[in-house]
Amino acid sequence: MRSEFSPVEGFDPPALGEPYLLTPGPLTTAYTVKQAMLRDWGSWDGDFRSMTADLRRRLLALIGDAKGEYDCVPIQGSGSFCVEAMLGSFVPKDGKVLVLANGAYGLRAAQTMQYLGRAFTLIDKGDYLPPRGDEVGAALDADPAITHVIAIHCETSSGILNPVAEISEAAYARGRKLLVDSMSAFGAIPLEVGKIRYEAMVSSANKCIEGVPGFGFVIAKKNELEKAKGNSHSLSLDIHAQWAAMEKTGQWRFTPPTHVVAAFLEALRMHEAEGGVAARGARYMKNRNVMVEGMRKLGFETLLSDRWLSPIIVTFFCPSDSNFVFERFYELMKDKGFIIYPGKLTVIDSFRVGCIGRMDEHVMHRVVEAARQSLAEMGVASAAPPQAALAQRAKLAA
Amino acid sequence: MRSEFSPVEGFDPPALGEPYLLTPGPLTTAYTVKQAMLRDWGSWDGDFRSMTADLRRRLLALIGDAKGEYDCVPIQGSGSFCVEAMLGSFVPKDGKVLVLANGAYGLRAAQTMQYLGRAFTLIDKGDYLPPRGDEVGAALDADPAITHVIAIHCETSSGILNPVAEISEAAYARGRKLLVDSMSAFGAIPLEVGKIRYEAMVSSANKCIEGVPGFGFVIAKKNELEKAKGNSHSLSLDIHAQWAAMEKTGQWRFTPPTHVVAAFLEALRMHEAEGGVAARGARYMKNRNVMVEGMRKLGFETLLSDRWLSPIIVTFFCPSDSNFVFERFYELMKDKGFIIYPGKLTVIDSFRVGCIGRMDEHVMHRVVEAARQSLAEMGVASAAPPQAALAQRAKLAA
Ligand SMILES: Cc1ncc(COP(=O)(O)O)c(C=O)c1O
Ligand SMILES: Cc1ncc(COP(=O)(O)O)c(C=O)c1O
Repeated sequence: MRSEFSPVEGFDPPALGEPYLLTPGPLTTAYTVKQAMLRDWGSWDGDFRSMTADLRRRLLALIGDAKGEYDCVPIQGSGSFCVEAMLGSFVPKDGKVLVLANGAYGLRAAQTMQYLGRAFTLIDKGDYLPPRGDEVGAALDADPAITHVIAIHCETSSGILNPVAEISEAAYARGRKLLVDSMSAFGAIPLEVGKIRYEAMVSSANKCIEGVPGFGFVIAKKNELEKAKGNSHSLSLDIHAQWAAMEKTGQWRFTPPTHVVAAFLEALRMHEAEGGVAARGARYMKNRNVMVEGMRKLGFETLLSDRWLSPIIVTFFCPSDSNFVFERFYELMKDKGFIIYPGKLTVIDSFRVGCIGRMDEHVMHRVVEAARQSLAEMGVASAAPPQAALAQRAKLAA
Repeated sequence: MRSEFSPVEGFDPPALGEPYLLTPGPLTTAYTVKQAMLRDWGSWDGDFRSMTADLRRRLLALIGDAKGEYDCVPIQGSGSFCVEAMLGSFVPKDGKVLVLANGAYGLRAAQTMQYLGRAFTLIDKGDYLPPRGDEVGAALDADPAITHVIAIHCETSSGILNPVAEISEAAYARGRKLLVDSMSAFGAIPLEVGKIRYEAMVSSANKCIEGVPGFGFVIAKKNELEKAKGNSHSLSLDIHAQWAAMEKTGQWRFTPPTHVVAAFLEALRMHEAEGGVAARGARYMKNRNVMVEGMRKLGFETLLSDRWLSPIIVTFFCPSDSNFVFERFYELMKDKGFIIYPGKLTVIDSFRVGCIGRMDEHVMHRVVEAARQSLAEMGVASAAPPQAALAQRAKLAA
C-alpha cells in the first residue's frame, strides 16, 4: 500500500497515510531499508557476523583513515548511550573534561559527567551561541588539569553547526584530546581524520545514514580503545570490552538488534550508491535551501544567520500573531503529511524542521506549501516573529 | 518469497531459505511482527506515545498486579543493559546484593556489581546446580548486611528453571528484597506478583513475547521506582529518570527503537490472542517435550533431569563418538533449516536447542529428523555422551 505520489528521482514516498518525518531521527527511511528487516538472523551465526564486519568496515571508510589508526565499535541503545560510553571509556578516572555546550545535547554531556563522578568544567553558551576556538584555548590555558574536550558537531537542539575544526586546533595545540558527538551530522558533514583531529566520535543508526533507531557506534583511535580497558563505569557501556569481544569473536558482546543492523547495512549501501558523505550532504543542503527560502518567503525567520545554519535541522521562531498556536500548526502539518518538531529554545518560542532522511527538494517545496496553507487555516496573517526574537538573534556574531 | 512448507496451524514458516532459529533470542518471529516494522514513526508524535502506553499496559497485565502496585519501564539496549539498570537503580549505594549464580547470566550479574562498585556476595553453584531456598536462607542469616537477592529465573546458559518461588520465600522471610532476571522466561513462565514476591524484574523484547531485539523492560514496584531517584551510576540506565520522564511526557527519554517497539506491540497482541502466558508456556512445553523425546530416542542425553528442564532451552551433551564435531553438526543442521546454539558449560562439551519462538511441535519433529540425518551424514553411530558427562549429571539432586 503505497501513496499516490509518483516517486521522484527514485525516491519512493512513504506508504499511504504515513507522514514524512521532518525530525532529526527517527526520520523517514527508504522502503528497502525497512524491507531488510523482514527476516530473522541468529546473532551467533556466521552470516550475521559477516554483517557486523561489513558494517564496521563501511563506517570506517567514511572517515578517510588512510593510516588504519581507527576502529569502529557499534553499541546497543540510543545515541545518548554512546555518548555516555565514550565519556566513561575514554576519559580516565583522574581525567578532566571541558564540555562545550550551546544547547540540550552539550548539557546532556555535562549531566553524563555528573553521573560518572569524574571532573569536568562547562562552557555554557546558552541556547545557540557557538563555542569558538579562542575561548576554548583560553579555557584550556587557564586550567591545565583538563585532559579532554567534548564538542557537539551539529547541536541539534538549535540546528547550529559548531566550529569543530577550530575547536580541534585549539585543543591539540595545547596537547589536549578531542571527543566529538557527531550524532546528527555524521554521514552528511565530513569528519575526516586527515582534516579534523579527534580521538573518538559517536553517531547513531537513525541519523544521516538513514537507518532505523536501535544502536549507535563509536569510531575511535585503536590506541585509545586499548587504553580504555578497565576505565568504564558500566558493563553495558564498556567500549573496550565490546571492542575486544568483537575483535575476538566477530560477535556483539550482548544480543544485537539484528533487524536494525540489517536495515542499517542496506542504508549504508544506499549511502554509498548516492555518492557517500559529499552527495548526502549536498542533498540535505539543497533540502535546507529550498525549505528555508520558502519559509522565509512566508515571513518566517530562522534563529540562526546563514553562516551557522546546518543542513540537518533548522529552528524557526514562532510567529508573533496571536492566532498561531504551535500544537495546532503541528496537527495541520501532520494532516498534510509532514511531522515537524517542537523547538528546544528556553527563551523564545520556536519550532524545528529537519532536512534529513529519505526525501529531496521536491518534498521540501511541498513542506513550504503545507506551511502556507496551515497558516491560512489558522488565520495567521504574518509569520513574522516577535521583536524580542530578532533582538536575541542579533547577539549572534557572524 | 515464502517457503514451500504449508503453514501449520496458522504458523507461517520463515521465508524461503531462512532457517528457524532454535536459539534463545533473537528467535524466529511471526511475519506479521516483522511487517509491523515497515513504517517510520516520529518518536515525539502522539501516535507513538500511544504505542508506548499500550506496550507498558500490556506488559503490566502479564503479572496479575491486582493492587496496581507495579509499573513498567522500557529501556533501550539489550537485556544485559536492563539487568545493569535494575541493579544500579534499585540497590542503594550502601546496599549489598546476594547474587545467585549457576551459569553465565548469574555470573554476569556479579560482574555488573563489580562495575557498580557496590557490595555483593556470590553463591556460585557452577555450571547448572540450582541455588536452593535453604542455602539462600543460610547465606542471608549469616550476613545481615545483605539487602537484596538477585536470582536468574531461567538460567539460559544451561536451560535450568531456577526455583525462584523458594528463593523469594527465603528472602522475604528474612526481610530482604528480591530482584529477578526473567529475561528468557517472562511471558511463558508465570511470574505473578500474587504468587511470587519480588520488587523488580527484567526481560527483553526478543524472548518469550517473540518480538525482535532492541530494547528490554523493567517491571518494578512503584515505591521502588520512586526510591530509585539519584541512585543510578549511569544516565542512560537510570530507571527512575526514564520512568519519571515517561510518566510526565509519555515519551522515552532518549530516541526509542521505534520499529522494534511497533514489532513488539504486534507480538504482544499475538501473545494475548494465543491465550497469554499459560498458552505460550504450554506451546513451548510441547515443543520441548517433542524435541527432547525425539533427541533421547536418537541417543542424546540432556544435562538436566526432567525436574529441572525449562521449556525455554535444553542443553544436550555432545556425543562421545569421535566423528562428532560440533561445528560440522551446526552447519549440517543449518543446511536443513535449523540454527542451533553452542553450549556454555565449562567442563563438558555440549550444545543447546531452543524451544521458544514462532514454531510448534511439528517443527520440533523436523528438528529431530534433521538431527538424525546430520548424525548419519557425519558417520556418528551413537549419540551417547561420554561417561564423565553422566557422572557429572548425577550430581544434580532431584
Ligand atoms: C547531537 C546529538 N547528541 C545526542 C543525541 C541523543 O541521541 P539519542 O536521542 O539517540 O539518545 C542527539 C539526538 O538527536 C543529538 O542530535
Ligand atoms: C537469563 C538471561 N539474562 C541476561 C541475558 C542477556 O540478555 P542480552 O543478550 O539481551 O543482553 C540473557 C540472554 O539470553 C539471558 O537469557
